[in-house]
Amino acid sequence: MAIPVETFFLTPDAQGTLQAQIQQMVAEGILSGRFQRGERLPSTRALARHLGVSRITVTLSYTELQANDYLTSRGRSGYYVSDSAPEPPAFSTPQKRHETVDWSRAIGQRFSGGVTPRRPSDWARYRYPFIYGQTDPTLFDHANWRLCAIQALGVPNFRALTTDYYDQDDPELIEFIARHTLPRRGIIANPDEILVTMGAQNALWLTTQVLLNPRRTAVIETPCYPALRDILTLSRCRLAPVPVDGQGLPPDAIPQGADVIFTTPSHHCPTSVTMPLDRRRALLARARDLDALIVEDDYEFETAYLAPASPALKSLDTDGRVIYAGSFSKSLFPGLRLGYLVGSAEFIQEARALRASVLRHPPGHMQRTAAYFLRLGHYDALIKRTAKALHTRRLVIEAELAHHGLTVAGQSTHGGSSVWVKLAAGLDTAQLAETLRLRDVLIEPGQPFFVGADAPTNFCRLGYSSIQADLIPEGISRLAAALT
Amino acid sequence: MAIPVETFFLTPDAQGTLQAQIQQMVAEGILSGRFQRGERLPSTRALARHLGVSRITVTLSYTELQANDYLTSRGRSGYYVSDSAPEPPAFSTPQKRHETVDWSRAIGQRFSGGVTPRRPSDWARYRYPFIYGQTDPTLFDHANWRLCAIQALGVPNFRALTTDYYDQDDPELIEFIARHTLPRRGIIANPDEILVTMGAQNALWLTTQVLLNPRRTAVIETPCYPALRDILTLSRCRLAPVPVDGQGLPPDAIPQGADVIFTTPSHHCPTSVTMPLDRRRALLARARDLDALIVEDDYEFETAYLAPASPALKSLDTDGRVIYAGSFSKSLFPGLRLGYLVGSAEFIQEARALRASVLRHPPGHMQRTAAYFLRLGHYDALIKRTAKALHTRRLVIEAELAHHGLTVAGQSTHGGSSVWVKLAAGLDTAQLAETLRLRDVLIEPGQPFFVGADAPTNFCRLGYSSIQADLIPEGISRLAAALT
Repeated sequence: MAIPVETFFLTPDAQGTLQAQIQQMVAEGILSGRFQRGERLPSTRALARHLGVSRITVTLSYTELQANDYLTSRGRSGYYVSDSAPEPPAFSTPQKRHETVDWSRAIGQRFSGGVTPRRPSDWARYRYPFIYGQTDPTLFDHANWRLCAIQALGVPNFRALTTDYYDQDDPELIEFIARHTLPRRGIIANPDEILVTMGAQNALWLTTQVLLNPRRTAVIETPCYPALRDILTLSRCRLAPVPVDGQGLPPDAIPQGADVIFTTPSHHCPTSVTMPLDRRRALLARARDLDALIVEDDYEFETAYLAPASPALKSLDTDGRVIYAGSFSKSLFPGLRLGYLVGSAEFIQEARALRASVLRHPPGHMQRTAAYFLRLGHYDALIKRTAKALHTRRLVIEAELAHHGLTVAGQSTHGGSSVWVKLAAGLDTAQLAETLRLRDVLIEPGQPFFVGADAPTNFCRLGYSSIQADLIPEGISRLAAALT
Repeated sequence: MAIPVETFFLTPDAQGTLQAQIQQMVAEGILSGRFQRGERLPSTRALARHLGVSRITVTLSYTELQANDYLTSRGRSGYYVSDSAPEPPAFSTPQKRHETVDWSRAIGQRFSGGVTPRRPSDWARYRYPFIYGQTDPTLFDHANWRLCAIQALGVPNFRALTTDYYDQDDPELIEFIARHTLPRRGIIANPDEILVTMGAQNALWLTTQVLLNPRRTAVIETPCYPALRDILTLSRCRLAPVPVDGQGLPPDAIPQGADVIFTTPSHHCPTSVTMPLDRRRALLARARDLDALIVEDDYEFETAYLAPASPALKSLDTDGRVIYAGSFSKSLFPGLRLGYLVGSAEFIQEARALRASVLRHPPGHMQRTAAYFLRLGHYDALIKRTAKALHTRRLVIEAELAHHGLTVAGQSTHGGSSVWVKLAAGLDTAQLAETLRLRDVLIEPGQPFFVGADAPTNFCRLGYSSIQADLIPEGISRLAAALT
C-alpha cells in the first residue's frame, strides 16, 4: 500500500538541510518498521507540495535513498521501499524523547496490581487447555452468528449500526431480554429496569460504583470470582469475606453492618455449587433483616444440564432488594462483551448515567446482532448443543479424576463448565500449573479465588469448555503424573 | 415463535389449585404483553414434565384458557395465543412487587444530573437537523464497511471475534494505529503506549480517573465539551476553567497549581478554532513550567478541508507530558464506539488496568472491522469525500448566516462540522431551540458548554454533518425568522 503524504512533517528547528531532513524522515520510517518493503512513497510532486519545498529537493533525497538501497525506483510508477532495505531492529526503536515526567507522582490513582490472574493469550496453542470462559469453535454456531451479523449490517439497520444512542440501548435487544430472557429466570422487568452492559464485568463494576463507597461494607463469598474482588478493592469499600459451604453462601454467617451482598447462586464461582431454594429464601430474609441489597451474578445458568435451572434469586424478590447481573459471554462468546443489569428503576437510572459517562453505550451493531441471534432461536439451539457437550465432558472429567483418586471439592448439582479440585494439603497449584504448562496442559491455580491472608494453595479450577472430551483423559493423566 | 417452557415456574407457596396457577401464568403472560398473538404454547406434555405436574392438569388449564379466548387450538400442532386474546394494556402493567428499598439511602454514589444535553433520539425525523456528531447515510461508505465486517466475521477471524482478550486489544488495529494513523499526526508510539477505548468519551474518562483525584486541579477550556465537564465533576477534582480566545486556550491564563490541562487544539469544542503552532509551543512550555500534564482531545482533525491539519500537540512533546485522545466516532460513526489513547507506557499501563476492571476490552469484532476498513484505504477515501461535502455545506451555512446578519463566533481556520453562533445578548437559545423544534429545525443551545455561574445564554452550535447542503438555506431562514 501507499505511504500517505501526511506522514511527513518538517520540524522548523531541525538541524541539517531540507534534503537531509527528508532523507532522514524516510530512513527513520523504514528503520522503525513503519514503512515496509514494497510500499510506495508519495510522488516527488505530492511530497514537495505537502512540505512546501521544491520538487528537486525531494527528488535528490529519493535518489540518495535509492543509492543507499532504502528505496527502489520503478520508472514512472514512482519510488518504493526497496526489497533489500535495511530491516527494522527486532528490539524496540530508541525513542528520541527524553521523558521528564515523574509518573510516580503524576499518576493520581493506581489501578494495576489486582489479583485477577492473567491467563496466557496463546491458550489455544496448548493441547490440553483446562481453562475457563473461552469459546469452543466446535460448539459455537459461527455460521448463524455471521448471518445475523450480516442482517444487522443491512441498510434497514443503518441507524442501529451507526447511531449515537447517548445513554440508551438497542430497543430490540431490551425487548427480547424483557420478554424472553428474563421470564425464563422467573423475572418480570420493565425496560427502565434493564441496562445493557459491556459483559458481566461491566455490570458488576457499574453496580459497585453506584452502591458502594468507602463507608459501606460489601459481603463477598470466599472463594470468589477474583475480578469481583479487584473491582471491590478499587472501590475502597469495606470487605467482609464469608466462606461458602456445600450449598453456597450461608446466610447466618453474613455479618451485621453488611450493605451489599455479592453472590453467585446459580453456580457458585469457582466451586459450581448451586444454592438450594430454601437457602435462597433464607438469604433474602437475612438481607431484609439487615436492610442490605443483594447483587446476584447469574453467570452460567444456561449450562444447567444435570437438573433444570432453578429460578433466579431475583424472581423471589418482592422488595426490589436484588440486583441481577446476566451475561451473554459464557453462552455466546466473551469477545461479544454484552451483559445486562436488572434492578429497580432508581438504581438503573444511576447505573445508566455512570455508563454514559464512562463509555456511552455498547456498540449498536453488537446489540442488534445479539437480538437477531436470540430472536431467531439460534441461541436456544446453541445452549442445548453446548449443554449436551458439556455434560459428556463433565462425565469424562469426573470419571478420570476419580480414576486417579483426585477430589472434586464442591459438587455442582446443575452443571457448569468447570470443576474445582482439591489436591493434597500444602501443594502449590501455581507451581503445578507451571510444570503442567511445559507439558502442554493448562490449569488455573486456585489461590487467587480466596480472600484473606491464609488462602490455601492446594486448589485448582479445571475448565472444560475449551477442551474436547477425547482429550480430557490424557490431560488428567498428565495432571496426575505431575503430582507423583 | 414458540414460547419457551422455561418461562413457566410454579411458586411453592402460591394460592389456588395447580390448574388455576397454570391458567394464571399463561393469562398474565398474555396480559403483560410477554406472550403475543399467534405464538405457540409449550405442548401439554412438555409443560407437564417441566412443572412436575400431571399432563391432564395442563390440558385442563389450556382448555379453560381456550374457552376464555386466550388460547386457540390448531389440532395436532398444539395451542397458540388466540388472535382475539385480550390486549395487553398500553400502560405499564402493575407490578406485584411492593418495593421496600429506600433508594435515597441505598445509592452510595450518584451519577445522574450532569450538564451534558440530551439530544432527541428521533433527530433523523426532523427536516433541518443542525445537530452534531451523528452519521450522514449519504456520506458514510456503508457498503465497504459491510464488506469489511463480513471479512472480520470469517472463519480465519474466529478468535478475533470471540476471544476474551482480557486487558489486551486487537493487535492488527494497534499496528495500524501505530504505523499509519498516528504518524499522520506526527506521533511515533510503540504498541505499549497505545490503548483502544470505547470512543473518545471512554478515553477521556479513563484519563481523568488515572490522573486526577480530589486534591488535584484540572484546567478546562470554557466553553468546553459538556461531557468532559461531567466526567471531571464526577472525579471530584478541583476545576479551573480558562476562557478561550480566538486562538484557543491562552497559556498565560493557566493558573499556578494546575496539574492536568484539557485542551482541543485541532478544533476547539465548540468554537472550532484551531490553535496556531506558536501557541502550541507556548502551551507546552507553560505546562513544563507548571510541571503539568496536557490531555489533547484531537477530535475532528480529519475534517481539515480549509487548510492541512497541523501536527498534533503530542508530536511536539519530547517530555512525555501530552496524553493524546483520538476517536473514530466522527470520521467513521459514533455507534462504533472506538477511540484510542496514546501516552507514556506508565500511564497506559494504569489506564489499561482500569479499562480491564471496568469492561475488559472493546469488542474484538469492532476492532478487527475497523482495522480492515483502515487498511484497505476505505477510511482515507471516506475522509476525503466527507471533507468535500462538509466544505460545501460550510460555504452554504456561512453565506446563509451572513445573509441573515448572524454572527459566527470563533472562526475555524481548518474546517470542522459545526459553527458556533452568537445571537443578540440576553437571548435564550434553549427557548429558541424549543420554538425551532416545532418548526422542524434542531439546534444545540450553547449554555451547557460554558463553565461557571454566569454562562451566557445567547450562543448556539449549528452542526452540519447530518444536513444536506440544499436544506441548509431553509433551515437558517427558519432560525432567522424565529429571532424576529
